[in-house]
Amino acid sequence: MFLPIIFVLSFLSSSSNAADFCVGDLYAPQGPAGYSCKKAEAVTVNDFVYSGLGATGNTSNIIKASVAPAFSAQFPGVNGLGISMARLDLAVGGVIPMHTHPGASEVIVVIQGTILAGFISSANKVYYKPLNEGEIMVFPQGLLHFQINAGKSQALAFVSFSSPSPGLQILDFALFGDNLPTDIIQETTFLDAAQIKKLKGVLGGTG
Amino acid sequence: MFLPIIFVLSFLSSSSNAADFCVGDLYAPQGPAGYSCKKAEAVTVNDFVYSGLGATGNTSNIIKASVAPAFSAQFPGVNGLGISMARLDLAVGGVIPMHTHPGASEVIVVIQGTILAGFISSANKVYYKPLNEGEIMVFPQGLLHFQINAGKSQALAFVSFSSPSPGLQILDFALFGDNLPTDIIQETTFLDAAQIKKLKGVLGGTG
Amino acid sequence: MFLPIIFVLSFLSSSSNAADFCVGDLYAPQGPAGYSCKKAEAVTVNDFVYSGLGATGNTSNIIKASVAPAFSAQFPGVNGLGISMARLDLAVGGVIPMHTHPGASEVIVVIQGTILAGFISSANKVYYKPLNEGEIMVFPQGLLHFQINAGKSQALAFVSFSSPSPGLQILDFALFGDNLPTDIIQETTFLDAAQIKKLKGVLGGTG
Amino acid sequence: MFLPIIFVLSFLSSSSNAADFCVGDLYAPQGPAGYSCKKAEAVTVNDFVYSGLGATGNTSNIIKASVAPAFSAQFPGVNGLGISMARLDLAVGGVIPMHTHPGASEVIVVIQGTILAGFISSANKVYYKPLNEGEIMVFPQGLLHFQINAGKSQALAFVSFSSPSPGLQILDFALFGDNLPTDIIQETTFLDAAQIKKLKGVLGGTG
Amino acid sequence: MFLPIIFVLSFLSSSSNAADFCVGDLYAPQGPAGYSCKKAEAVTVNDFVYSGLGATGNTSNIIKASVAPAFSAQFPGVNGLGISMARLDLAVGGVIPMHTHPGASEVIVVIQGTILAGFISSANKVYYKPLNEGEIMVFPQGLLHFQINAGKSQALAFVSFSSPSPGLQILDFALFGDNLPTDIIQETTFLDAAQIKKLKGVLGGTG
Amino acid sequence: MFLPIIFVLSFLSSSSNAADFCVGDLYAPQGPAGYSCKKAEAVTVNDFVYSGLGATGNTSNIIKASVAPAFSAQFPGVNGLGISMARLDLAVGGVIPMHTHPGASEVIVVIQGTILAGFISSANKVYYKPLNEGEIMVFPQGLLHFQINAGKSQALAFVSFSSPSPGLQILDFALFGDNLPTDIIQETTFLDAAQIKKLKGVLGGTG
Repeated sequence: MFLPIIFVLSFLSSSSNAADFCVGDLYAPQGPAGYSCKKAEAVTVNDFVYSGLGATGNTSNIIKASVAPAFSAQFPGVNGLGISMARLDLAVGGVIPMHTHPGASEVIVVIQGTILAGFISSANKVYYKPLNEGEIMVFPQGLLHFQINAGKSQALAFVSFSSPSPGLQILDFALFGDNLPTDIIQETTFLDAAQIKKLKGVLGGTG
Repeated sequence: MFLPIIFVLSFLSSSSNAADFCVGDLYAPQGPAGYSCKKAEAVTVNDFVYSGLGATGNTSNIIKASVAPAFSAQFPGVNGLGISMARLDLAVGGVIPMHTHPGASEVIVVIQGTILAGFISSANKVYYKPLNEGEIMVFPQGLLHFQINAGKSQALAFVSFSSPSPGLQILDFALFGDNLPTDIIQETTFLDAAQIKKLKGVLGGTG
Repeated sequence: MFLPIIFVLSFLSSSSNAADFCVGDLYAPQGPAGYSCKKAEAVTVNDFVYSGLGATGNTSNIIKASVAPAFSAQFPGVNGLGISMARLDLAVGGVIPMHTHPGASEVIVVIQGTILAGFISSANKVYYKPLNEGEIMVFPQGLLHFQINAGKSQALAFVSFSSPSPGLQILDFALFGDNLPTDIIQETTFLDAAQIKKLKGVLGGTG
Repeated sequence: MFLPIIFVLSFLSSSSNAADFCVGDLYAPQGPAGYSCKKAEAVTVNDFVYSGLGATGNTSNIIKASVAPAFSAQFPGVNGLGISMARLDLAVGGVIPMHTHPGASEVIVVIQGTILAGFISSANKVYYKPLNEGEIMVFPQGLLHFQINAGKSQALAFVSFSSPSPGLQILDFALFGDNLPTDIIQETTFLDAAQIKKLKGVLGGTG
Repeated sequence: MFLPIIFVLSFLSSSSNAADFCVGDLYAPQGPAGYSCKKAEAVTVNDFVYSGLGATGNTSNIIKASVAPAFSAQFPGVNGLGISMARLDLAVGGVIPMHTHPGASEVIVVIQGTILAGFISSANKVYYKPLNEGEIMVFPQGLLHFQINAGKSQALAFVSFSSPSPGLQILDFALFGDNLPTDIIQETTFLDAAQIKKLKGVLGGTG
Repeated sequence: MFLPIIFVLSFLSSSSNAADFCVGDLYAPQGPAGYSCKKAEAVTVNDFVYSGLGATGNTSNIIKASVAPAFSAQFPGVNGLGISMARLDLAVGGVIPMHTHPGASEVIVVIQGTILAGFISSANKVYYKPLNEGEIMVFPQGLLHFQINAGKSQALAFVSFSSPSPGLQILDFALFGDNLPTDIIQETTFLDAAQIKKLKGVLGGTG
């Protein structure tokens, strides 16, 4: 009498398999909605767990900070699920420079230290405040924002995004870290040529 | 003088081909938005018609009921179109046990018999009512709900979903039909070990 | 020892109240996503149940058919939930004339009789087939489609939509049932003036 | 001291690569969300620029008009980006016949000449007006609409769509340019058989 | 010569004001997309910062755990932004019982302690693993999942959701904490009446 | 015999009224999806037509250019329809400075003159090219981009957006046109204080 339920069970299970998740297969075709899905049979719990945010990042660099992303490219388990994360480490004096995420809103939670965080709206109004441990702040999609270690010790924060691949455009790298010609930068930002060339020198830009 | 229109016609047709539908190719890569599309040239009317819901389901099982899905896995014509269906047959005493659809809202229409249907909200409020022939009820996305044959004859209903692959998580199968260890079930549901083991016995669970 | 759980319970409940549903308040402001929500406290099971599709429609009219919608305007329980329904009754010789739903895909399930159903793609390819009881067919979003009673008895079908307010544009009513001037119709459809005026006469159009 | 920034730069860049765009690869699998993405390394500025709308279209045809689309099939750079365009040329007396875009809203901007543009709502209300140079008009998704050269000289307009593949269903081509049988057209549109056959003759329809 | 820029500046600012954010006004009408927006002029940085997750929750309760949500109802700054958060505190032996979020995927990051976390798929496959400090795990939308303190000390985690109002349905509260009659629970879950009554006693359920 | 059709007509019309459009009522509550809808009865064709882009903008300013938006705030007819437009006028030497639209992709069509247009990706790759009359270019959502008059005469272009309220964040106004303190700008952009103060002077910034 109990056998038929097994039939029902397997029937239903196989029919609804695809709806739950789509762990990204980084080597298969990619589309506007994300990576192709890894075969369901090959998926294990390890596809849904990511350990890459567990260690303090290397902050021995010009910004005295590091960003470790867990976007779908690093953590394929979030592919198609509308969410991702990153870890921010800021040494004393560390800064996550002015940047945007073209495709996502962000929430930060401060775990350790004090972080001065802020964003600028389309209406050119600035919203910024020092955040203490346990405080959270939201940065609406696509707007310029920044995080600065405002304390006297190492700071740690985790940030979450409303997309599995939020993108990340750091203003200085975008302007001065590529081959956009100095005169175009000058015309479109009103910065002086000397200033542009100085920062191109620092950030490896050419042109 | 009439020939040029033919040119316009074929020009426009070919250009807008892809927008209309994306019949699922179950053997090509699958992404977060669904299956890859079958080549448009190979699509016929039969891709848009499904006959699998036409016959009464086998209700000789423990729930005295059957669910026949027409999700994109069974009916690839709905792939990408935001909708799908299923057929419910409930013998006398039949029950579609407590379950959720993780990715879709549902509407039921009762075709034959009387069905007691209900759902439970996040606010732990219960909404249930007997539905007669021709009545419809909506179950909001992701909430626990159920259908019980409340009459003295066979009942038939069709359900529609706001997704081509709504998923289906039946509570008892989820808890007792797999290898989730008894002690974890106990800790996370407060059910007694004896109760858990009894249902694991019925539903084929191990652990 | 058991009292604290009550506290947890009520705390969590109130915090997640809004996510589940948004029963439409037809008299409050309406936005692009639908009607404003009725207060959660005032919602009962009757908001999620609709009985208006239970009776055979009046088919004593020129199309020998009737359409009874259960869109969010008639059935506010589906507001915001991505789904809605309608009932089609077709007397012998009855027809649901060529029409579109600007904002939704549709699935039909035939309950009684035989219905010849079809749609036309952007590529000007026609897909049509007679559907028997229990068969379902999907009509992709926004495309011209129709249903004809192809049998010798009354036919009944239910249709579901991938939107709570799918819209409905019936070709003949759009062209001949309003005040669009005859010469504009002529220029944009190539129909003869006599044909246009004849149908304006039938459908109450002016101009 | 400046070297580490380079490391940060390349690390971040590679991690956020996929979020920005997905230039369509017309020869790889296509899904409900659009074409598969061309490899990022192979993308150049030319993928984002399209010159196919630069020349006046050939209007020596029955509608004295031409439509040049820049949908994702012609302009793969818009794949996944929620937007596309087309160019309309209307000779004196030219008409873009009654049509719909099943999956997108449209905005027209008149560049040269005067265009009588209009649409019909689901409520069978007609909204139309002559548009002069520089004026814009919006046509809500999926509704029947048209454009007529209302002046005494050639007219030019550009239209934009809220989808990279909006589709295009021209009423006359849909009804009279394929093999939908005359009797089905008659039953579903109330048009006279003679009228239908006349237009099938013009537009190449059979059946 | 520099004055005109001020004009451009203020003109552009006012025109793009509305796109950035929509801080929820909890007392104005609510719709399917969320709360109405607070007037932009009244918005300050404090609308985007939330301090309610800063303190350890009270775990002196039956689950030895607490959940502090920062959904749009508590933190109106996330309204409309596709993201929200919550804080989990688990004392030794603490458990966040089996639950779902009907409208969102979730990512957890463990800040302190060791947490055994897992979810069950529609295919009745169980994915669970102990997570150490700094590890993250994703729970796909709408699926049953749980978190258990698997260590010998207090545990702390933050969770993020892909929706500003993810909802929260705790299985035990849904089944045993309301007035769903015992016989309906019995029929839809196969649990024994004695087990149901015992848990109703604990969780305050009636019926 | 023809009267019944009138009944069917009005019945259907009223039921599908809301699906078509939602002309923005700028004085009613606004939500995450846009403005509340103007009453359907009060809507006329003029709500769907906008003449504000018809005249050449005033380019006697520091950027020798002007942007005239037709977003939902200026053109409420596009509210909820997923599209909007703007007009760009660039005098000789005119520039639309480096900017982003946080919530939309953009397509530009050049009507007159030659415009050097470009954008920078998250991967810090620059894509730019001079566009001639009739050429179009797409700028993916949220990325920094710019337009420069590259010719020797006045230039004119129209741009379309994949959102009715795309937002607009002009880099210089965001950084130097508000009260963000100089030291924060310095820390987050690496610009020299003298450079920052110079541009604050030009753009009216304080702090």
